Formats: sequence, structure tokens, C-alpha cells
Amino acid sequence: MKIEPRTLKGFRDFLPKEAKKRQYAVEVLKKVFESYGFEPLETPALEYEEILAGKYGDEGDKLMYRFTDNGDRKVAMRYDQTVPLARVVAQYQNELPTPFKRYQIQNVWRAENTQRGRYREFLQVDADIVGSYSPLSDAEIIATVIKSLEKLGFKNFKITINDRANFVGIDPSAILTIDKLKKIGKEGVLKELEEKGLPTSSLDEVLNKNLSDKLKTVSDVLKDQRVIFDPSLARGLDYYTGLIFEVEVDGYDAGSIAGGGRYDNLIGMFAGRDIPAVGFAFGFDRLIEAMETLNLFPTDLYTTKVLTAFANPDLQEKALKIANELRSKEINSEVYPDDVNLEKQLKYADRKQIPYVIIIDNDKLVLKNMQARTQEELNFEQILEKLK
Amino acid sequence: MKIEPRTLKGFRDFLPKEAKKRQYAVEVLKKVFESYGFEPLETPALEYEEILAGKYGDEGDKLMYRFTDNGDRKVAMRYDQTVPLARVVAQYQNELPTPFKRYQIQNVWRAENTQRGRYREFLQVDADIVGSYSPLSDAEIIATVIKSLEKLGFKNFKITINDRANFVGIDPSAILTIDKLKKIGKEGVLKELEEKGLPTSSLDEVLNKNLSDKLKTVSDVLKDQRVIFDPSLARGLDYYTGLIFEVEVDGYDAGSIAGGGRYDNLIGMFAGRDIPAVGFAFGFDRLIEAMETLNLFPTDLYTTKVLTAFANPDLQEKALKIANELRSKEINSEVYPDDVNLEKQLKYADRKQIPYVIIIDNDKLVLKNMQARTQEELNFEQILEKLK
Repeated sequence: MKIEPRTLKGFRDFLPKEAKKRQYAVEVLKKVFESYGFEPLETPALEYEEILAGKYGDEGDKLMYRFTDNGDRKVAMRYDQTVPLARVVAQYQNELPTPFKRYQIQNVWRAENTQRGRYREFLQVDADIVGSYSPLSDAEIIATVIKSLEKLGFKNFKITINDRANFVGIDPSAILTIDKLKKIGKEGVLKELEEKGLPTSSLDEVLNKNLSDKLKTVSDVLKDQRVIFDPSLARGLDYYTGLIFEVEVDGYDAGSIAGGGRYDNLIGMFAGRDIPAVGFAFGFDRLIEAMETLNLFPTDLYTTKVLTAFANPDLQEKALKIANELRSKEINSEVYPDDVNLEKQLKYADRKQIPYVIIIDNDKLVLKNMQARTQEELNFEQILEKLK
Repeated sequence: MKIEPRTLKGFRDFLPKEAKKRQYAVEVLKKVFESYGFEPLETPALEYEEILAGKYGDEGDKLMYRFTDNGDRKVAMRYDQTVPLARVVAQYQNELPTPFKRYQIQNVWRAENTQRGRYREFLQVDADIVGSYSPLSDAEIIATVIKSLEKLGFKNFKITINDRANFVGIDPSAILTIDKLKKIGKEGVLKELEEKGLPTSSLDEVLNKNLSDKLKTVSDVLKDQRVIFDPSLARGLDYYTGLIFEVEVDGYDAGSIAGGGRYDNLIGMFAGRDIPAVGFAFGFDRLIEAMETLNLFPTDLYTTKVLTAFANPDLQEKALKIANELRSKEINSEVYPDDVNLEKQLKYADRKQIPYVIIIDNDKLVLKNMQARTQEELNFEQILEKLK
């Protein structure tokens, strides 16, 4: 029986071209996170179901991948990285430093409705500071996000901030409506408040709020014009308890590419005591989409820099020798392994987007620039010079 | 109800210290693979069960994690990276170059018996050349393994090679016995052959084999004394069809840390035609263990290089300023975010293995080397000089 080669709906293969872009972005992010003292953490794909169940509301329980394993254990696949972080913090409390600054970049699985353009397997990029109540930690989180955006090449972006404390005394249902201010405008908000039978005064009440003392400190430490106070920002009714923020990028309108905030009542769930935390998450698929849209990927994300091509099969060994020499000079190189003609080798270089081909024709070496479609006869030293 | 924070048997959390080591090894390997023209590929954690079922023998079917998802689809978790590669090669045949040189570094899941020291989630590190019958590809695979070992710091290792063709005409059960030659010795092999009622002459028959023409080519191309022909090497009854090889490292006796070979009848399973392939896999957990045993990890696998510590809380802002300046010079730095005394900050640096602390005491800066337990008063320029 022939089995059709196919992937599950909502799951993706990343072929080299795409995989390289994603790796590039991950590498840039890791480097920035580490420069701010965040360290890597990895947790398993599978957890005991009881660790994850009930932690993400009804929707989470519905969308979670769970099953009974061969040993009759009820297990569930990683649904986010925050609950596993809470588990780790409780499980290894004597081994971890306080504050614990960790980043975690792993896939999560959610049985989302794919018709809404959602994926069922996607990469989460999180960084959090656990164990510190200080507004300086809030500021460090935002500073890390800003540096990440800069290093990825984003020029024009803004970070809207607010303090959940500003919503104390406001009806939760009203908060959800006011959160839509940017989308539906003042008129829309007032209309929806009325429809819900809520006091329309709550909009003004929220909009008249000032920077809280904590936000003022954060703002003073950051001294960054791109950080903007927006009293209507709510980020839904999530678990946040203090600072909340969202990142928007000029020229990319599909939504916020990162966000986060302070959540002081969540991480202690397994430890049995309150443990403060503040952090952020990048929406990695959106981030990649935004980088595509704004052309932020380097054009030279090739793997192989040079294909050493042989004009006839007798020269294949010489081609291999030259490739090895190039590799010893840190220049990624390869040789077509089978006896094929030059045309086929050039096609291979094209398909793989290899930028240079050295054509070996007896004692002659020709360096071909595959993008510019130019070529010149050179000796090996000259070629090295050109490639460096 | 209090839920006990725990991980499933056979699954591991990698706390920062361990995670950094693993990341280091992965980065070194990726760089080498790319220098030989291998490109990254990623496939999903979940596949349709029919893609994986029956591909790994009875044991594989037994150990595979599989379940029925919310949409009533039978799915299975990635069990290796070769079957997904076969699927990818069939599914995207018009998009991939030939030969297709890909590396893949992802977790796989197997419900192994953990009492045998096996993990149920472990990282696989594979690289393969798909679509080439050339012995040059075999040689490139081994060259990539050699360069990987060198870049990881291994000095003394050997790569045993053989050609499956040498076993043509030998009873498969005899091959399995002869494969144990190194473990049980000549006497042991002869005894087991007798017990199995097999001709004891098959041992000599195998041992008298010479390098096949293909192996001779591989050997000639590599010109490496560490590559040794061993006619008794069989690598079980796996799917290999030509070259097979295994890597052993001096000073680490827990087994081979890498192996591979040519398998020309497998990758075409979904494409419906023979597609040749040759590749290798590193046993990543063993590799890490061998690197630990031989002390091959750099001692400076820190994330944060400098903690800028404040002698009193009023200097915290200054500490942050200095940390930011260090970061702008590509020196990873952080500040303790809460108002604590100097002792606590130093303890934090110790626990996190941060090698340097700058103690800020009004206008005085003291650079403390945390390992050497030395310190000296310096100005900022001098500190920069020391840290570079």
C-alpha cells in the first residue's frame, strides 16, 4: 500500500531556506538574552497531565494534546513555557539562583482551529525574571525586548505600557471593552459599554489615569521615547498583576509581535507560596513574518559559500582538495559528489543559492559570482582574497 | 490539592548549566555541518501514525508514542529523523536540490525501559546526503564526522569502517554473532556460532575479506590514519546496504559516540523508487558524557560575564548604567534588581558562575575575579581592558 507523504494540518516542515531564517532569528535573540544575563532552560515535551490541566482555563483544557502513555500515565504535551517554569522553580528551588533569569525557546502544541490561520505546533520564545519584585526587573525586561528588536534590524517600533493597578475598581467586562479602544475607537467603546449595561464613565476614568509610581520608575530607567504609556492597554484578562506591555512595529499591521508583563501570583503555584515574576514572549511566527515584510533578513543566509566545480570528472579530486583548503580557511565549501557535467553543477549551486562557484578547468581556476552572473580567471590566492 | 512538581520518568529538565553545555556542542556541530554544505531541516513532532508505523520493526511499533488526537486522527510522535526525511524527500521532490544534504537536530521520543539507563526523550543529531551513489559522498560523511570530533576537542579517536557487501552469502544470524567479536573475543564467537548450529568457518571467511573497491576509494579520499577497516563490524542487521562505520573515542568506554553508513533502499519508501543515501548520527547524550569525561567543555561557558554590584542601594542606578555600557561593548552584564547588600550580590554571582564582579562604591570601582578570589581598584577603561 502506498502511503501518501503528508504533514498534519497545522504542523509544518521547515525546509532549509525557511529553517535558516528561523535559526538566524533565534541566534540573534539568544545572544541578546544572554547579554542581559538570561540563561537557557529546557523542559520536556511531555508532562504529567495534572501539571498542565486546569492551568489554562477551559480553552486550554480543550486544546491541550493529551493521552495515556504505554505505562498508563496520563500525560500532556507542552502547552506553554510558563507552567513548566513554575514546576521547575518549585522542583529545583535549592539549585536555582534568585532571581532566576531564564529564557526558553521550544515548541508548544495546541489543537487550534487552523482555519483561523493558527498553527498547532509553534515556537515560543520566552524570557522571564523570577523572584524579584523590583521595577528594575520590569525595566530590564523591556530593555531586553528593545535590544532584541534593534539587533533583529527593526528601526521603527513602539512599546505601549500600562499598569494593571490602573484597573482596580473597574468592572472586568468593561476592561475588555476598553482594551479594544484602538480597534473600534471611542465611539465604539462607549456603544459597547452601553450595550453591556456598564457605566460609560469608566472609559474616561481609565483614560485619565496617570503613570503609576512603578511605571514612572520603569520609564525613568529606560529613558526611551519609544516606550509609551497607554492607560487603555489591558492585554485581556490574563494573569498579569502589574506592568503590562505590547510591541508594535511600523509597517507590519498583523498585530503585536511581542508582549509581556508582571505576574506575581502564578509562578508559585507548585511551590505553595507567592513568587513574583516579570517576563515577555515573542510571537515567533509573527516576528518572522514582520522580518520578511520589512526585508530584515540578511541576503547572505547561505550555508555553502562556494561550490568547487569540476570541468571534467578527472578533476573532481582536485575540486575536493580545493574545497578542503577553503574549509580550513573557514569558508564553507562543497563539491558535487557524482560525475556530472558542469551545467548540472551550476544548477545545483543555483538551487541551493550558493553565491560562488569556482570552476576548475585543468590548471585554470574561474571564480563565478552566481548572483551578479560575472566570472573571472584568478589564481587561488586571488580567489581567497575575493571570498574573505 | 497540592500537585507535586515532578518530571516523567525518562524525561529531563535541562537547567542552565547543563543546557549551556548542550547548546555549545550543538553550535559546534552545526557550524561544522554547514561548512560541508549540510543545511538545516525541521519536521513536526507529530506525524500521521501511518507515516511512522511499521517502519521501525516490532520494537519500534511497541515503543512509539501514539494516540488519537481531538480530530480523531491517529498520530505518532517523532521516533527518529530518517523516516520523516524520507517523507520530506517524497513530499517536496521538486523543491529540493539533488543531492539533498541536510542536517536535523531535534528531539525524538521512545517509551524505552528506563532501567537500562535509557531516556524517553533525547536529542538526535543526524546529517545525510540523499540522492548520490558516489563513494565521494561516503567520504564526505566520514570527513564531516572527523571534523566534528576535532572541533569538539576530541584528540584520540578511531573510525572503524566496513562494507555490508562483505557479508553477502553469510547467514544473518552468524553476522550478529561475528559483530560481537570485540566484546566476546574469537573464542566467544566460535562458541556462539557452534551453539547456533552455524558453520564456524564463517568467522574466518569474514575476517579474510579485503577492502571493497568502494571502501578503497573512500579510504583514498580521506587519507586518515584514524579510519580503520574492520571486516567484523556489522552494526546489527540494520538497513545499511554499503559503507558502515562507528566512532570510538579513547578514554570513553561506554560505547560508540557516532555511527552511520549507506542505506540505498530506505529513503525512497514514500517516493516509490530507490533513492540512495548515506549519513551519520551522533549519540548526543553519549557525546556529552564523553566530553564531560574528557574535560572538553570550555571553562568559560558563562552567560553573564560581569555582575555590576552596588555597595549601597543608592548606587544601583549607576550599576545599571555601567552594565549598559559593558553590554554596548559586547560584554554580557547584569545588575541585581533588588535592594540587597553586597554579600547577597556576590553570592548570586557565585551561584550563577559569573566570572567577574565590578563593585561600585561611590566613585571607586573594584574588579573582583570570582574564581581567583582576587580584586583590584581600577578605573573603567582599565576594567574594559582586563575584560576584553
